[in-house]
Amino acid sequence: MTENPITKYIGNFIDELSLAGVTEAVICPGSRSTPLAILAAAHPDLNVHVHVDERSAGFFALGMAKTKRKPVALICTSGTAAANFYPAVVEAHYSRIPLIILTADRPHELREVGAPQAIDQQFLFGNFVKYFTDSALPDIHPDMLAYIRSLAGRAAGEAAKAPCGPVHINFPLREPLMPNLDDEPFQRVRNRRHVSAASGHASADKNELEALSALIRETEKGVIVCGELQNEDAAPHILSLSKALGYPILADPLSNLRNGSHSKETVIDAYDSFLKDEELKQYLMPELVIRFGPMPVSKPLFQLLKQNPAIRQIVVDPDGGWRDPTQQSSHMLHAAEQEFAAFMEASLTEKKSFGWLEKWQFANNRFRHHLRNLEAEDLTFEGNVYRHLQHYIPENSSLFVGNSMPIRDVDTFFENQERSFRIFANRGANGIDGVVSTALGIYAATKKPVTLVIGDLSFYHDLNGLLVSKTLGIPLTVVLVNNDGGGIFSFLPQSAEEKYFEQLFGTPTGLEFEHAAKLYGGQYVCPESSAHFADAYLSSVNRRGLDIIEVKTKRETRVQHHRQMLDSALHEIRKEWPF
Amino acid sequence: MTENPITKYIGNFIDELSLAGVTEAVICPGSRSTPLAILAAAHPDLNVHVHVDERSAGFFALGMAKTKRKPVALICTSGTAAANFYPAVVEAHYSRIPLIILTADRPHELREVGAPQAIDQQFLFGNFVKYFTDSALPDIHPDMLAYIRSLAGRAAGEAAKAPCGPVHINFPLREPLMPNLDDEPFQRVRNRRHVSAASGHASADKNELEALSALIRETEKGVIVCGELQNEDAAPHILSLSKALGYPILADPLSNLRNGSHSKETVIDAYDSFLKDEELKQYLMPELVIRFGPMPVSKPLFQLLKQNPAIRQIVVDPDGGWRDPTQQSSHMLHAAEQEFAAFMEASLTEKKSFGWLEKWQFANNRFRHHLRNLEAEDLTFEGNVYRHLQHYIPENSSLFVGNSMPIRDVDTFFENQERSFRIFANRGANGIDGVVSTALGIYAATKKPVTLVIGDLSFYHDLNGLLVSKTLGIPLTVVLVNNDGGGIFSFLPQSAEEKYFEQLFGTPTGLEFEHAAKLYGGQYVCPESSAHFADAYLSSVNRRGLDIIEVKTKRETRVQHHRQMLDSALHEIRKEWPF
Repeated sequence: MTENPITKYIGNFIDELSLAGVTEAVICPGSRSTPLAILAAAHPDLNVHVHVDERSAGFFALGMAKTKRKPVALICTSGTAAANFYPAVVEAHYSRIPLIILTADRPHELREVGAPQAIDQQFLFGNFVKYFTDSALPDIHPDMLAYIRSLAGRAAGEAAKAPCGPVHINFPLREPLMPNLDDEPFQRVRNRRHVSAASGHASADKNELEALSALIRETEKGVIVCGELQNEDAAPHILSLSKALGYPILADPLSNLRNGSHSKETVIDAYDSFLKDEELKQYLMPELVIRFGPMPVSKPLFQLLKQNPAIRQIVVDPDGGWRDPTQQSSHMLHAAEQEFAAFMEASLTEKKSFGWLEKWQFANNRFRHHLRNLEAEDLTFEGNVYRHLQHYIPENSSLFVGNSMPIRDVDTFFENQERSFRIFANRGANGIDGVVSTALGIYAATKKPVTLVIGDLSFYHDLNGLLVSKTLGIPLTVVLVNNDGGGIFSFLPQSAEEKYFEQLFGTPTGLEFEHAAKLYGGQYVCPESSAHFADAYLSSVNRRGLDIIEVKTKRETRVQHHRQMLDSALHEIRKEWPF
Repeated sequence: MTENPITKYIGNFIDELSLAGVTEAVICPGSRSTPLAILAAAHPDLNVHVHVDERSAGFFALGMAKTKRKPVALICTSGTAAANFYPAVVEAHYSRIPLIILTADRPHELREVGAPQAIDQQFLFGNFVKYFTDSALPDIHPDMLAYIRSLAGRAAGEAAKAPCGPVHINFPLREPLMPNLDDEPFQRVRNRRHVSAASGHASADKNELEALSALIRETEKGVIVCGELQNEDAAPHILSLSKALGYPILADPLSNLRNGSHSKETVIDAYDSFLKDEELKQYLMPELVIRFGPMPVSKPLFQLLKQNPAIRQIVVDPDGGWRDPTQQSSHMLHAAEQEFAAFMEASLTEKKSFGWLEKWQFANNRFRHHLRNLEAEDLTFEGNVYRHLQHYIPENSSLFVGNSMPIRDVDTFFENQERSFRIFANRGANGIDGVVSTALGIYAATKKPVTLVIGDLSFYHDLNGLLVSKTLGIPLTVVLVNNDGGGIFSFLPQSAEEKYFEQLFGTPTGLEFEHAAKLYGGQYVCPESSAHFADAYLSSVNRRGLDIIEVKTKRETRVQHHRQMLDSALHEIRKEWPF
């Protein structure tokens, strides 16, 4: 009997992926992908996670890779299966998450001839993957085994190279598809060492850094804007630079600078709210901005930068991107964040004066003070859900925040605090899709409690993601903020359109999510008081199962309540302004 | 106040789409797509259907276009929204369904600069759309209004041109996004007539037809193979040709030749089963095959054609495709199906002898006879579900068949019958995704009862599709054949793999779909006898709501039961064979 070349060819590929540091493979069931699936499952150093819906599987893998910051393999069969990965691939591209997508394909004789479950998988993900290749047909010639091992190392290396992102390898496979596990599939090629790919990092030109340092030294009114950091190790350097310069840090929730035991002296957490005030904005108008990470979620900050071209904007991006939605940046700097911060701090000759920083601190402290004095019991106002939630998130856990309103509400209502937890969101393309699965992927990678705070439309969009909570036993605490529709549209001019608003924008679904909890084996509770909410939340976090804690909020009064709250606080601050 | 160019620019586009014959628009909510959505909703001649999950929305539009055979518009906002359309776009490409995808995009200054919810939407669907263009920015110069009207006409024309398929127009839109409905958005450009695009059809070369006619005249052992027809009007011509030639028609369920009041004299409905028998296959080996439509689902038929290169295969494709998965076709003919059939019949000089046809009729009739004698009460055997179901499907209704096992079971168990109904499936890429939504789209287009027969993994995959049943009041009778996992794998060599089979292939989910019924406002019943099944089915069809009729079947005994049944019937036929 002839040996099936699939065993050693795919076995060598999988083994080399493992040598390259891949430890997790997310697998969607299918026939054509049999050798990839079985050999991944049989490999001693790979953990496999099986998910039936490829769209959810893609985001699940994204969640794992997001927190591990290492490539995760994602495997599916031929046909539209792979097309379902597309939303996650797009998000991975923009949020720079390393994924290795492995698609099984029909062999050449069954391509584009009307064969079943065969689609054109060449360049299926367009420019959203950094690297695509069509593997050869399985072959056990020593040169081909060296080739396929090298391809595995390269896939992992390309995915992890700056900027991180998804790569795609397509495997034409001919029947018989069953590998023979007794045939030493992972046996390494003699004398061949595995390739270790080490991604370099950007180091800025020294003269450029000196010039910027001089600019910074002579500018009092500077602010640091901090989005999600490419490298968390940069955080202490940025905090230290901020103190040395007397520049406030406008810290997006995803910067994770608002929570943790470090000093929050310069960390501003309420700029999104008080920069909505024209008067305060003038008092706080900067001359220079140093930005780390992508542009924060805050629209007032974005508008301030866009509408004031005189502000010098330095954008520090270790991956050489061009993240400048304001079109007003003056310096796009390709440099590691911590090196930039350390250089700037080291080149300071004297501590800067603190008059400028004090204004920001005053606005921030007073805004938080006035907000704390507002009643918080009425959970039908969404802001109150976040005001309570922030106090209960467990130390060392993760908070995954849905897009649209939740990320904005976390920005508005989450204060600086001592407890240390990590906040995540999918802010590459800001979709409301795949959010449940990304959160579950984070648990699968960290094995520490994950809280997901999400709106009802986004929760509905990825309900399928909950399947792995049931089948793989992955716990999740879902805080479902249900305003029965698209709450964000009430903040937009579309809300003036009476005739079509509910049909096209409000889109209430009337779904009763208690049934979704039952479908996926979760527990459901709908607290109506803050005490009940706290109880439900804390017992969920301790229980480690799937819990849906639904808070029914009011979409129709949300905007008015929010604006009144802001107006009264901002009015007070203007009255109190001492400078 | 300056007029917003969005109103007239997008208004003219939408109006011209309507003039081009588009009557249905499926809309997914979003902000950037506001002018497209509002102006579609406000147009007097367009029906809009709002769906929150873009993946389901794509398949819903596909279902509408599939039965209307006219382009349907599909609208979404910027970002990953459009990437969720991908699976439906791929299916539309391969099944030749006209869709007009209209995506809103950020304007040029917000592209690829890290702006929120902005992704590169240029050529987003690769080669799976026939036509892509990036619209200009809205502009009310008369030339630009003529341009955008022409673009709408062209989009509809390109989608409907042979082979039909999806097209994509991307619209960069700048704030403010609200159109002004008082500003006569649909006012037509003076003196401009709308463009009417009329797709031509293929007419084969006369000499080639004569040569094939001579070949057919001299060949007694011919069969007609008929898949889903591009044009249903061809059916009577094909039936007539078959009788004149004495060639049996091997009719795939999607040919819709097995049901209806026409004569079934030459229509063979059980070839998939009896061609599994090596002895019968030799008795029935053809010398010539004329195929209309794509290759049927039957694997034994495919293998017969692939393994016998001496068989001449004429493939008639009105759209000039290359559907030849066997790699053994001898003639690829670009010709309208009815013209080909009429030409061949007209050029016959004498009726052919019927000895050959009688063999096929004998095998078919005896197979059906033996099958009918088997017990049918045990619904845990999936075959019995189909044996009962076929008798109750209402006249003039639609049956949508899921992929994987259901389409194969319909092929095996559905007999020729008098009642007229249409059978549909997504056989472009044969995915298990989007099936629920496609079925709902068929109801939305026909307003006649739709029965969906589907397996549990496929039903789970597109549970989200059920939302429009609730929000838009679209009825659907779901016959859910639940064997708790991927039943098809038990028929494949993978089933020998004991260690990983259930984890990677069986993938039982244990979902209790009664909760899904409740979530989406449907009724649920789980009949355990054939009488109960018939009652439940008939009352659902009359009720016109959402009904999930779940039949719990046994995956572990399916293959054995099926093979025993076949073996006993085939054994009998071999014994009886009189020729």
